[in-house]
Amino acid sequence: MTAGKDKALVLLSGGQDSTTCLYWAIDRFGKHAVSSIAFDYGQRHRIELECAETIAAAAGVEHHCLPIDTFAALGGDALTDAAIEVDDEISSASGLPNTFVPGRNLIFLTYAAAHAYRRGIDHLVTGVAQTDYSGYPDCREATIASLQETIRLGMESDVHIHAPLMHRSKKQTVELARDLGALEAIGKSHTCYKGRRPPCGECPACRLRAKGFAEAGIADPLLAGT
Amino acid sequence: MTAGKDKALVLLSGGQDSTTCLYWAIDRFGKHAVSSIAFDYGQRHRIELECAETIAAAAGVEHHCLPIDTFAALGGDALTDAAIEVDDEISSASGLPNTFVPGRNLIFLTYAAAHAYRRGIDHLVTGVAQTDYSGYPDCREATIASLQETIRLGMESDVHIHAPLMHRSKKQTVELARDLGALEAIGKSHTCYKGRRPPCGECPACRLRAKGFAEAGIADPLLAGT
Repeated sequence: MTAGKDKALVLLSGGQDSTTCLYWAIDRFGKHAVSSIAFDYGQRHRIELECAETIAAAAGVEHHCLPIDTFAALGGDALTDAAIEVDDEISSASGLPNTFVPGRNLIFLTYAAAHAYRRGIDHLVTGVAQTDYSGYPDCREATIASLQETIRLGMESDVHIHAPLMHRSKKQTVELARDLGALEAIGKSHTCYKGRRPPCGECPACRLRAKGFAEAGIADPLLAGT
Repeated sequence: MTAGKDKALVLLSGGQDSTTCLYWAIDRFGKHAVSSIAFDYGQRHRIELECAETIAAAAGVEHHCLPIDTFAALGGDALTDAAIEVDDEISSASGLPNTFVPGRNLIFLTYAAAHAYRRGIDHLVTGVAQTDYSGYPDCREATIASLQETIRLGMESDVHIHAPLMHRSKKQTVELARDLGALEAIGKSHTCYKGRRPPCGECPACRLRAKGFAEAGIADPLLAGT
């Protein structure tokens, strides 16, 4: 039914933004043309991967998980190294959160592109955004555009990287999720940097999520059951 | 002694080209400013990684090896999947050798850049070449230039990717190795796709290597002891 050129692969981390992107892709490409991919890179909170799997299953799309053991070997990151405490604030030294893995999104998208290449999928969808910007240069529009060009050249592909949240605030992302009927799925998503369920409510990720829902005047379905 | 801006990281696979690049980097940046990195991506010939380590030790440079378990999970590649036979010829279906992993060099260079970023190293050196071209689009100059831009944007770095062999034929690479005093080290390198030592002499990699030495009128030091 679906031509190869009209298939999409969503990078699904199990968080609010990528869950919204999954429903954006289903809305645009049709459920049977969409699949999702997650990366097991040794994140300290395995719950993210479980959420991604649960959300994909609930949406009825095929889901893959690729292992990445390299980030942990690169060392020194709060997201992968249990010996490092997660800061609530931006690290003053670099201006970046200490959860930063240099080039993490470049790696994720390149692997997604390789996975897509093998399956004749031309469209990648990622939840990166440069609004409500948390300091990650690999989430910016210019970086994503440059990466798309690099992958096209390096794989001789016609890949399109879609970042539907790029210019949306958290408030607008919540509104988009509502319009796409994704709120129930977002109730299954995970955001808290500290890996707590119910969420801690205090880490930067929890606070940013709460701000978005508050500004949109919508209750976070994740908190409805707590 | 060496300012951070003048340090170089060489992607050292253990082959002839990357060994030549190691000596190019030592010549340009000085031995104490150079380190090397290899990737253990599940290649079927572990000898490559041993060669890289031996060559780095002989040259007196610090060497790291990063694991990559993702390529094997992506599946279906002759270089990593022992169930697939290595073709002597280019696969007719895709026009690419069946050892092709989509975007392999994009991943290698991005990981090398992340490793370099953490150590304040601005210069990456890779042995990719678009002459004597074996069909890999991720080895072309336009791809490498685009990737450099992507990494600069995505890591907010000032990385320079050097590809000193980009426009050199295999003959010219052999001559460069001779001029840099790298021939002894090249005697420790590994090229054969079939992982044989002494090399099989018949796979595309062995034939390309032999052609370069023959055209340069230099004996391959790897064969001197056989």
